[in-house]
Amino acid sequence: MTDFLAWIQACQARMESLLGELLPAPQIAPRRLHQAMRYAVLGGGKRVRPLLAFAAAEVTGAPAERAQYAAAAVELIHAYSLVHDDMPPMDNDALRRGKPTVHVEFDQATALLVGDALQSLAFEVLTRPGLNDDPAAQLGMLNLLAQASGSRGMAGGQAIDLASVGQSLDLTELEFMHIHKTGALIRASVQLGAQCGTLSDATRSALDHYAKCIGLAFQVVDDVLDAEASTATLGKTAGKDAADNKPTYVSLLGVARARDLAQELRADAHAALINLGEPALRLRQIADFVVERKF
Amino acid sequence: MTDFLAWIQACQARMESLLGELLPAPQIAPRRLHQAMRYAVLGGGKRVRPLLAFAAAEVTGAPAERAQYAAAAVELIHAYSLVHDDMPPMDNDALRRGKPTVHVEFDQATALLVGDALQSLAFEVLTRPGLNDDPAAQLGMLNLLAQASGSRGMAGGQAIDLASVGQSLDLTELEFMHIHKTGALIRASVQLGAQCGTLSDATRSALDHYAKCIGLAFQVVDDVLDAEASTATLGKTAGKDAADNKPTYVSLLGVARARDLAQELRADAHAALINLGEPALRLRQIADFVVERKF
Repeated sequence: MTDFLAWIQACQARMESLLGELLPAPQIAPRRLHQAMRYAVLGGGKRVRPLLAFAAAEVTGAPAERAQYAAAAVELIHAYSLVHDDMPPMDNDALRRGKPTVHVEFDQATALLVGDALQSLAFEVLTRPGLNDDPAAQLGMLNLLAQASGSRGMAGGQAIDLASVGQSLDLTELEFMHIHKTGALIRASVQLGAQCGTLSDATRSALDHYAKCIGLAFQVVDDVLDAEASTATLGKTAGKDAADNKPTYVSLLGVARARDLAQELRADAHAALINLGEPALRLRQIADFVVERKF
Repeated sequence: MTDFLAWIQACQARMESLLGELLPAPQIAPRRLHQAMRYAVLGGGKRVRPLLAFAAAEVTGAPAERAQYAAAAVELIHAYSLVHDDMPPMDNDALRRGKPTVHVEFDQATALLVGDALQSLAFEVLTRPGLNDDPAAQLGMLNLLAQASGSRGMAGGQAIDLASVGQSLDLTELEFMHIHKTGALIRASVQLGAQCGTLSDATRSALDHYAKCIGLAFQVVDDVLDAEASTATLGKTAGKDAADNKPTYVSLLGVARARDLAQELRADAHAALINLGEPALRLRQIADFVVERKF
């Protein structure tokens, strides 16, 4: 476990450094926009999606020097979605990662443009020559990121989430929402990391099953933490989902059964990796980490 | 000229039909988001950027069956930018193409997601296999679109625009803003259409010069029309720039000199195409059309 924590920290440090290089420097015009983009992305976040990309790259033997760009692309998409999601027309949240949200620290127009420009940058990063030996396969990676981000992926999930406020969803409908809202990008993180190397259809399919379990587990644990943790521990406004009358795994199942569900999903995630052997070690450790985390 | 108008209408009809296919059907979940995306994109617009892509494709002999995807990609980026630009934190505009803007017809959260999802879709469209014989060159096309859309392109131009409200810009600063805000995507429209075929460095450079002139001409004419036309003719709220105290070519030069500048830019655009012969006919006609249009 010490080894795993060291690996996480190394990945996070690599990611922070690379994102710092990929984001336009704060003194380049338009300065305020670039400062706000850096504010939104740097200096915080668990970097769960990059960790998944790095871990999946180990399964296919893809070098970290390539996989780091896939990791950065998914993190930029995630960061843009947080900036837009925090804005007043959506969640209207003032705190994120322990800091004022972008529209609070800057202004709403800047937050809108920050999100827009981070999305463009994510795609730009993934066009970098040589992320895959086969440029046609790299076009496929861009296609995957676009679909995962769009109206039938993450953005669509947020639309379903919006429509669900005040509605009584059942477990199937809640899962449908999360498979889009967070699951699509988590799946993309795993696939894009792996696709920096070469993978068989069986591995691709095993990784997809793993990603689906881990994505839902992540959300279930988020709901438990949101219901239990204090704002200080969480670094964002706690108890907000309940206050907003949003359906969650806790509101549907209660805390105890939600915790059980997270454990089942962890077991399923491990089962999905059964044939991938030692190279899938990091993915297994991430499954444990996602379920056991306290923040 | 009759021939040119028929060509425009054929391009517009092809674009409307293709965009209708590329946009998710309105009955696919999340329905409201997909309905709003279609509302934002279909049934209006001059389709200037697609026209430029189709016209530039003729210069390099690229088939329209390919160029139409480049055309759709730039139009989707343009459409997303209009949706976000019209929102209250930005221009707060209630009317676009003679219809209520997306955040008025639907709501602000939906408008935010519509813009986000249209941007993803634009990149998805450009990943379609075979837009260029060389997949590595097609990765370059995606890179070009990402840069043109991002913080050093269109989104950056909007940030400069925001920062300029109430400021007294000079002509150089106003040009700097427009080269980003509208020029970057117009350049991308021309380049992406042309790059569906094969082009020399000289042609690439000639097209860039043409695109720069036409992009500025378009903006100068926009300012003149905004100052003069009625809301009914324009299909969007007229006189809004002056009311918002935004610097424009008309506020800096007056209407008469702004008209002269548009004519000079038209002449420069024609000069840029001097060595491209008959295949550049449509680009020349577009230069005339952009400067002579009344809406």
